[in-house]
Amino acid sequence: MTRDKTATRYHHGNLRPTLLAMARALIEEGGPAALSMREIGRRAGVSAPAAYHYFNSLDAIAASLAEQGFAELSETIDAALDGPRRHLLAGGIAYVAFARANPGLYRLMFGESFQAYSKGNEAIRASRARIYRQMKDDLEKRLTPEDVPIAALFLWSLTHGLALLMIDGQVEPDADLDTKIEDILKFAGMRLPAAR
Amino acid sequence: MTRDKTATRYHHGNLRPTLLAMARALIEEGGPAALSMREIGRRAGVSAPAAYHYFNSLDAIAASLAEQGFAELSETIDAALDGPRRHLLAGGIAYVAFARANPGLYRLMFGESFQAYSKGNEAIRASRARIYRQMKDDLEKRLTPEDVPIAALFLWSLTHGLALLMIDGQVEPDADLDTKIEDILKFAGMRLPAAR
Repeated sequence: MTRDKTATRYHHGNLRPTLLAMARALIEEGGPAALSMREIGRRAGVSAPAAYHYFNSLDAIAASLAEQGFAELSETIDAALDGPRRHLLAGGIAYVAFARANPGLYRLMFGESFQAYSKGNEAIRASRARIYRQMKDDLEKRLTPEDVPIAALFLWSLTHGLALLMIDGQVEPDADLDTKIEDILKFAGMRLPAAR
Repeated sequence: MTRDKTATRYHHGNLRPTLLAMARALIEEGGPAALSMREIGRRAGVSAPAAYHYFNSLDAIAASLAEQGFAELSETIDAALDGPRRHLLAGGIAYVAFARANPGLYRLMFGESFQAYSKGNEAIRASRARIYRQMKDDLEKRLTPEDVPIAALFLWSLTHGLALLMIDGQVEPDADLDTKIEDILKFAGMRLPAAR
């Protein structure tokens, strides 16, 4: 499922998408801590007060970036599930690949500031619920109903931990990381019962 | 194995342990980003230049805090393995409990700045190797040699991811989290072959 992600976001004569693009580049360069309204404005060629006209706080920018991130993550997993591979393995590989391709955004989406900026954000809540349902639908074919939430949190912990160990440089980068990721997910996946 | 952790670190007439204690309190209040030489000095009642006499950079403070953290984590896991529970489960519960009790320190130990401050630090390397060996010793009783490194990274990813989802407020806090953590680790652990 691909669609033009920019189409719904860009408005002519509106600085908002430019500011968001600058903010996204900033977090990929320096992590969530690098977000600064002054620097975002500077890169967009406007003053900080002009930037505040579109986003009244850094939290508002963080929330908009996370909205993009969760929507893209959900689409990435959707696309992977449409492929020829086993569902859970394909979804896990796509999840970790998303984090590695967007480490700054991923840290923002799952970091300690999440609670503060995401409070009451309906778009983030909906994308997260959609990702959870993608995983749950598969697990329901394999497990008894009471095991499903445990298995879902097990798989999320595993892929989240693996993604962060990789992007935070905790795993020796000398090995073939793609193979390692697949081996680990297979090791976990083989231990789940097959789909009924 | 308990020993007086302060005994080897405190020197009379030496500000170093006081500065470290202040730094540790700071990261628990505001995360690794809250570290500031001026604030550490202020809390210890000395100027920033006086603090720099003991630690020539914030990275040096981060490295000393991480040394403490990895040593404590290794001791915590050791103590848990001496208990009556199944080894891997006890170790996993102790690991996640350590992170939840020391969220700021845990984020520092495993966050994106790890590579920068830990480079060439022999104490950190040794503690991490010891924790890895604690896990590996158990896995070697269950698995073929070629599966051990994969299983070790699987377990580390799982506990790391679970710990971070908890301390970063990503999991609904309404449930009984202790039970949830144990259920997830059991769910993963039951899928490993028993010790031979």
